[in-house]
Amino acid sequence: MSKALRIIPIGGLGEIGKNMLVIAYDRDAIIIDTGMMFPENDMLGIDYIIPDYQFLLDEELNVRGIFLTHGHEDHVGAITHVLEAFPGTPVYGTRLTIGFVEVKLRQARLLDKTELRIFEAGDTLQAGPFSVETFHQTHSIPDCVGFGINTPEGLIVHTGDFKFDYTPIDGWPPDFGKIAEFSQRGVLALLSDSTNAVREGWTPSETTLDDGFERVFKAAKGRIIVATFASHLSRIQQIMQAAIRHNRKIAVTGYSMVENIKMATQLGYLKPPADLMIPIDQIDSLPASKVVILSTGTQGEPSAGLSRLAQGRHRQLDIRSGDTVVMSAHVIPGNEELVSRTINRLFQRGANVSYYPIDNIHVSGHASAEELKLMLNLVRPKYFIPVHGELRHLIRHGQLAEGSGIPSENIAVVENGVVVEFENGKMRLGERMPGRYMFVDGSGVGDIGPSVLRDREILARDGFVMVVVTLDADTGELIAEPEIITRGFVYLPEAEELFEEARDRIRDVVAETDTRMSAKKRREKIEAALKHVFQQETKRRPMIFSHINLV
Amino acid sequence: MSKALRIIPIGGLGEIGKNMLVIAYDRDAIIIDTGMMFPENDMLGIDYIIPDYQFLLDEELNVRGIFLTHGHEDHVGAITHVLEAFPGTPVYGTRLTIGFVEVKLRQARLLDKTELRIFEAGDTLQAGPFSVETFHQTHSIPDCVGFGINTPEGLIVHTGDFKFDYTPIDGWPPDFGKIAEFSQRGVLALLSDSTNAVREGWTPSETTLDDGFERVFKAAKGRIIVATFASHLSRIQQIMQAAIRHNRKIAVTGYSMVENIKMATQLGYLKPPADLMIPIDQIDSLPASKVVILSTGTQGEPSAGLSRLAQGRHRQLDIRSGDTVVMSAHVIPGNEELVSRTINRLFQRGANVSYYPIDNIHVSGHASAEELKLMLNLVRPKYFIPVHGELRHLIRHGQLAEGSGIPSENIAVVENGVVVEFENGKMRLGERMPGRYMFVDGSGVGDIGPSVLRDREILARDGFVMVVVTLDADTGELIAEPEIITRGFVYLPEAEELFEEARDRIRDVVAETDTRMSAKKRREKIEAALKHVFQQETKRRPMIFSHINLV
Repeated sequence: MSKALRIIPIGGLGEIGKNMLVIAYDRDAIIIDTGMMFPENDMLGIDYIIPDYQFLLDEELNVRGIFLTHGHEDHVGAITHVLEAFPGTPVYGTRLTIGFVEVKLRQARLLDKTELRIFEAGDTLQAGPFSVETFHQTHSIPDCVGFGINTPEGLIVHTGDFKFDYTPIDGWPPDFGKIAEFSQRGVLALLSDSTNAVREGWTPSETTLDDGFERVFKAAKGRIIVATFASHLSRIQQIMQAAIRHNRKIAVTGYSMVENIKMATQLGYLKPPADLMIPIDQIDSLPASKVVILSTGTQGEPSAGLSRLAQGRHRQLDIRSGDTVVMSAHVIPGNEELVSRTINRLFQRGANVSYYPIDNIHVSGHASAEELKLMLNLVRPKYFIPVHGELRHLIRHGQLAEGSGIPSENIAVVENGVVVEFENGKMRLGERMPGRYMFVDGSGVGDIGPSVLRDREILARDGFVMVVVTLDADTGELIAEPEIITRGFVYLPEAEELFEEARDRIRDVVAETDTRMSAKKRREKIEAALKHVFQQETKRRPMIFSHINLV
Repeated sequence: MSKALRIIPIGGLGEIGKNMLVIAYDRDAIIIDTGMMFPENDMLGIDYIIPDYQFLLDEELNVRGIFLTHGHEDHVGAITHVLEAFPGTPVYGTRLTIGFVEVKLRQARLLDKTELRIFEAGDTLQAGPFSVETFHQTHSIPDCVGFGINTPEGLIVHTGDFKFDYTPIDGWPPDFGKIAEFSQRGVLALLSDSTNAVREGWTPSETTLDDGFERVFKAAKGRIIVATFASHLSRIQQIMQAAIRHNRKIAVTGYSMVENIKMATQLGYLKPPADLMIPIDQIDSLPASKVVILSTGTQGEPSAGLSRLAQGRHRQLDIRSGDTVVMSAHVIPGNEELVSRTINRLFQRGANVSYYPIDNIHVSGHASAEELKLMLNLVRPKYFIPVHGELRHLIRHGQLAEGSGIPSENIAVVENGVVVEFENGKMRLGERMPGRYMFVDGSGVGDIGPSVLRDREILARDGFVMVVVTLDADTGELIAEPEIITRGFVYLPEAEELFEEARDRIRDVVAETDTRMSAKKRREKIEAALKHVFQQETKRRPMIFSHINLV
């Protein structure tokens, strides 16, 4: 084992170092973030995806702590899996972040077994050979931090997810003082959020949306239904403020939205006046012009509040002509079709729909190019490692860094699993770890691989056909009608003719084959004949199986 | 049957009246466009989607002609299906549009049986009670037209797909004279392209991209690989011009790109100098700085040229460090993940990738809000029917029309299948036709419905398990190991224990059941037991089937 300092981004699909990042020195390591991702559209049946942290176990590293930058799912969603692999590891986070984590641990019955350590931005934390200085950042969820990690090789600054919001909703701007102080002390390497590196200019402040909401609230004559991310507490606070200004009450629908608002109110991150919130079943006691409904479902997720409303399948609500629906979120790539469908269905039911980017009701939580240059100039690192984003975003971020004066040989654009090593103040690329991420499907973690996915793909495309053929053990003659079971291949009520032909072909094959032929060989012949019939008649290629009974 | 004039938009997924639109009067009808759509991500196994024209057959309407606005797939791709349903119907199109259609008819062996009637923009065509005046439009393919359809009820103007490009690549601007002339004569109704109705301002001219290509060609030191739509002939011409300016030769890869360039060159729409084009297998005889490769694959389609290059699976080419890849197209919604993956993989292989909207290398072919207002002002129709676009786009287009002075009661925002009727100069909404679109899967048209798709969805999510249980016919005892066939459920090499448990449960069920129990009942018990085991052990719900042999 090398004595070098090692930085290893892991997990994520296209994105690098977002779900998890490991900083290791000798036999000690810390983990920054433990996030999950949702599968892409062609990862059939997969529930979600978590980072592949197997190498930490293989190397028997001593994980000294899990440090969380903020409470979003792509940064904390895999916490229970990671804690099962590294039981007893202390988890560090700000109060709100730990609030989100507690919910997960309780559900997984891990709360009692876990050491949760709440810190305040500005605190310094010790973890083995690392001394971690925390600093406040602004993003699209409150109580975000970045880290200044003092290591035996030097100071590593990790921005976490951020944008420079000078006028955040909670009035708490980024800790420029701390960031600048790091540069005074000398920064070995900066790891910075690349999500919006390809976007020119500056990302607008959250407060710039006040105008957009004001316009919507002024124009709306009926109810206002706002969908946003359940974790976007500052957006929720903004909507509360607009509701108060316009003398409307707020009802909440969607499990995660209800739970998050409850938790954030308890912790003091939301402070709704006593009479602002009303139960969802009481909205009809108020005039439509006095009602705001907060909902989940910005991504068109079929089971979320807004999709159920759009399809007329919501238990407690329905969309009425005159409702105004505000979709205050961006579309996560891959969800475009679902979101378009939801918007069109809402229009169909008579709602007026405001959506991003058509209306000014959402801004990104990530820094654009000019902010990234500001961060580079504030920190003035010797080495630069862009993280959080797809490879194309990291490459652009690297170009921004080069333009900001960092020599190209001091910039490491790497993919998940690639080790960046520092020794004696010099950076080099190390080995590549095997894993990138693991599929979680039901209770299985990492057991679904390419071969199962390939089978699911074939089944999804053309279904399957199974035939059971019963033969006389002595004569080899068919002694019953071949039985056919099929799903996903053809519409059965209209396919009787096709299967009659299939049975004929089976009869032909059985009649032609020698009784001494092995069962395997006979099955192959039957399956080949069926494949031919189905291909010819339908131009489809279902999976075909056969079973032969000898009676 | 009413004597009213009827306008019926059909086909398309979210989009309205794009793939097909019917104009009917009494027993006569004409069809405008016969397009296809690609399925959305959750329409598993479907090859493509075509309009459901069944009502035309049910009503036994006399289809007097098929009028094509332009040669894009979403306007001509279903031509062979429509001609099979309405054999002998004359097909009207400009020379290039008919060129695209001929290829399809030849493949489907329908060329001899079809009456193709080539017209030039400006021609007037007779079809039953309709007199169709054609006028030149600009879009993202040459030789586009709109139609002024003189009907017994008045003049209907249909824009086709368009933008107002004053400086098109082929130098042939839209026929403003004709459009304005219609308004002089009085227009009963305008049907206008709504695709970009939610976009503010004006869509830039195709020639504005010359700057973008010039910048790319100037900066590129190695090969330049440009991917664009195979039908985007003006874009292809633009790239040819850039190649000539920079003294590079062009090679082409991708079947549809090769075929389209051949056809367009024969018809005179492309005029490459004799020595410009080189065979793809000769590019290595030239220095990298002298080569341009034109390719398909802008949507990340796994089988297209660019994806194969990105994955290192191209027969003739590979991406080299120093290559510049230009993705000169927008991403069709639903393809975002595939396109992102392709871009990242190209970067991974060392290419520098230019893509839209980061670089100025693509513009839309559809009119933005200000152009749509200009069209409304030029045509000055009495009634307005927005078409081509999702419901949300049509609604916005309707708002633009209202803002342009058309009374809201004279605007019909309808969905596919809804009949808009005109009688005695008055518009009303008629009945709703049953069908919207049909799935094409293999050789089956319209046979795949929701139940098959639902089965495919379940199979795609968790696969299936089939057990064959062989019992003694007299004693009801198991006389062989239960045989299990499964796909898409678990990774078999690691699931032996699970299936051992499943076999144990089957033994238990068999031991517990009465020999007099019916086979159906016994199968249900076995399937319920298996469902329980799999659910408990894997939290997955595969489809479960069983078969009992009595021996």
